[in-house]
Amino acid sequence: MDHAQGGLVESTGSEGLLRLLRERSVVRRYTMEPVDDALLDRLLDVMVTAPTAANKQAWGFMAVRDPRSVRRLRAFAPGMIGLPPLVVVACFDRARATRDDSVPWDAGMLCVAMAVENLLLAAHAEGLGGCPVGSFRRVAVQQLLGLPPHLEPLLLVALGRPARALEPTRRRPREEVIRYETWS
Amino acid sequence: MDHAQGGLVESTGSEGLLRLLRERSVVRRYTMEPVDDALLDRLLDVMVTAPTAANKQAWGFMAVRDPRSVRRLRAFAPGMIGLPPLVVVACFDRARATRDDSVPWDAGMLCVAMAVENLLLAAHAEGLGGCPVGSFRRVAVQQLLGLPPHLEPLLLVALGRPARALEPTRRRPREEVIRYETWS
Repeated sequence: MDHAQGGLVESTGSEGLLRLLRERSVVRRYTMEPVDDALLDRLLDVMVTAPTAANKQAWGFMAVRDPRSVRRLRAFAPGMIGLPPLVVVACFDRARATRDDSVPWDAGMLCVAMAVENLLLAAHAEGLGGCPVGSFRRVAVQQLLGLPPHLEPLLLVALGRPARALEPTRRRPREEVIRYETWS
Repeated sequence: MDHAQGGLVESTGSEGLLRLLRERSVVRRYTMEPVDDALLDRLLDVMVTAPTAANKQAWGFMAVRDPRSVRRLRAFAPGMIGLPPLVVVACFDRARATRDDSVPWDAGMLCVAMAVENLLLAAHAEGLGGCPVGSFRRVAVQQLLGLPPHLEPLLLVALGRPARALEPTRRRPREEVIRYETWS
């Protein structure tokens, strides 16, 4: 195979990426340093390169930096601890749902989450950190941001420069969560 | 701020990661080259470093390489086009649900999707490619793999060396999906 792999792989093999994935960790306290336009747009641009079921791209994203709006969002989201300089509101677009009636959720929602992971990884590589918050008052957030009814906010992603050193990610024992060929 | 960022950022800034995110694209046709144990375990190890709501780690993953099992899985998943040497079955663990009754899905499902994105990115960095498949016969897959009732398969992730050059990812116009401060 001879498909172009780009600079990361050419220069460092996959080690750089694997290390970055291992090092990323949740960041819940932020400095007040603002996220400038250029950095914000770099993050948003790679976010939407995530996989998308049936190429529906059933998503919509809002970047909120106005401190008053960020404070209001935080008031509706008890899981948002520190005051971030940026919140990205990641929404599922019900108007583009895949309409698979066999499950009570939509594959497009999973794609929104993959886009959020892209965002968090890019933020980490840029020296920022973040925390996706899934517990918040949905109707209040929709009204605050003027979201149309078909856009359902799934995650509020708080982002900023970490105010403290990152703590390593703790995970369940490997054999509890990863199996080979059959589960039992 | 002085938090350690690791080799990728030290050596190349964030450019390597951003390029990798932009270059990853869906891969639906695979060579027959097997995925060896060491490579497989590198992929699986970074997969579970994804964010996890309330640190529930409400997930379980199975790596399936036995060609007969892969063929059977594919028979239940019309969205799986080529025959991959590896399928990772990504499951939500209902026994560890966050039990937020305000929505018909669980934040833990979104974390499973983020783990799958880690897997796809690591695979891309290692010269593999993949396609997450969300449409498949769930009960049949559960029975085939001996999954306990609390483990619900969300995505079958087909992985292998790309048999063709990657095609660039096409996305909706930026202004359709990304907004600032308010939607309207």
